[in-house]
Amino acid sequence: MSATAEKKGKLITFEGGEGGGKSTQIGLLTKALKARGLEVVRTREPGGTPGGEKIRSLLVNGDIDLWKPLSEALLNYAARFEHVSRLIVPALERGAWVLSDRFSDSTLAYQGYAHALDRETIARLHRLVLGAFEPDLTLILDIPVDVGLARARARGDGEDRYERMEVSFHHRLRDGFLDIARKNIARCAIIDGEPGVDDVQRAIRAVVQSRFGIDLS
Amino acid sequence: MSATAEKKGKLITFEGGEGGGKSTQIGLLTKALKARGLEVVRTREPGGTPGGEKIRSLLVNGDIDLWKPLSEALLNYAARFEHVSRLIVPALERGAWVLSDRFSDSTLAYQGYAHALDRETIARLHRLVLGAFEPDLTLILDIPVDVGLARARARGDGEDRYERMEVSFHHRLRDGFLDIARKNIARCAIIDGEPGVDDVQRAIRAVVQSRFGIDLS
Repeated sequence: MSATAEKKGKLITFEGGEGGGKSTQIGLLTKALKARGLEVVRTREPGGTPGGEKIRSLLVNGDIDLWKPLSEALLNYAARFEHVSRLIVPALERGAWVLSDRFSDSTLAYQGYAHALDRETIARLHRLVLGAFEPDLTLILDIPVDVGLARARARGDGEDRYERMEVSFHHRLRDGFLDIARKNIARCAIIDGEPGVDDVQRAIRAVVQSRFGIDLS
Repeated sequence: MSATAEKKGKLITFEGGEGGGKSTQIGLLTKALKARGLEVVRTREPGGTPGGEKIRSLLVNGDIDLWKPLSEALLNYAARFEHVSRLIVPALERGAWVLSDRFSDSTLAYQGYAHALDRETIARLHRLVLGAFEPDLTLILDIPVDVGLARARARGDGEDRYERMEVSFHHRLRDGFLDIARKNIARCAIIDGEPGVDDVQRAIRAVVQSRFGIDLS
């Protein structure tokens, strides 16, 4: 995947553990950007394409032990390559704003930090599949593990293979996302996901406004 | 995947295009090896494990255009990592002979030679996932494209996504397997798949006997 492709739009990715409110916040930001007359493509990972959604169903259902961490990383990158090449890059080329519920930081946090897969292996896999391609902005919705898991379980959408993993997994995941943010300060912003929906959205809009110089008030 | 794992068994992979008779020949060789008192594990790719079989169903069914070649390679290596780590290496460690219907040469031939995915990318992916792990012997069943496709269509097992690809794809595939054999003469043997079943099996046993010094007469 060439990073030099003609790119007029913006890719904003939403990351974080389970139950952090990503979906709700993406919906609200979509509304605000559309109100400014922008084309917005709302998507998710794993998924976003017919093939990617098939891979998603293999990852989010079934036994906790169904996949080794490296297999999960490979499945995620197969779905991601479909996503980037068929949906994200074409959308960016026509100037759309793409908002994705999860992207490559999730592979690093889930399979790397939480499942202890060698992080250099994941970095090599990323370069092999996507080269230097990366989001313009990554918003990490941070929330205490117990609060997030309680929210995710209340949602009960059936996609619970990760939710069922032990609590220590979710603590490593949260710490992983925070570490990724610290190591990529130019690209990432940590958003406190614990306040009410409107307060979180206000914080997100403030970051988007200052990062891209657009008015979302 | 460490290549230095304690390894007492042998991995023999069967490769080639569609309709080359791999399955029949593996069945006959299994019988001969078992008659010598050896433990034989008969398996296939993509597949051989619960996760791998799920990935197989994504690859062999559906629209020809469902996956980009790089996505197919990643899916194959996800299934292969499950296969090697959960089934093949444990079997080799206890001294079994593992006979696999397809292995990594199929990714190189299908996605590399036939679908024109950069072959160095596939080699990097192999090293990333499996390191220096490779079969002890690879038997490439070679057959003219029209004969193989006619056989595969007569079989009619429904797993026809590749069979439906254009004839030129199958010619590139055959040439690819022959080129792989030429570049890996210490590991690979080309077997003429066109004669009758018994003649082909005789040729296969001759190679296995000479390669491993066992008597299969």
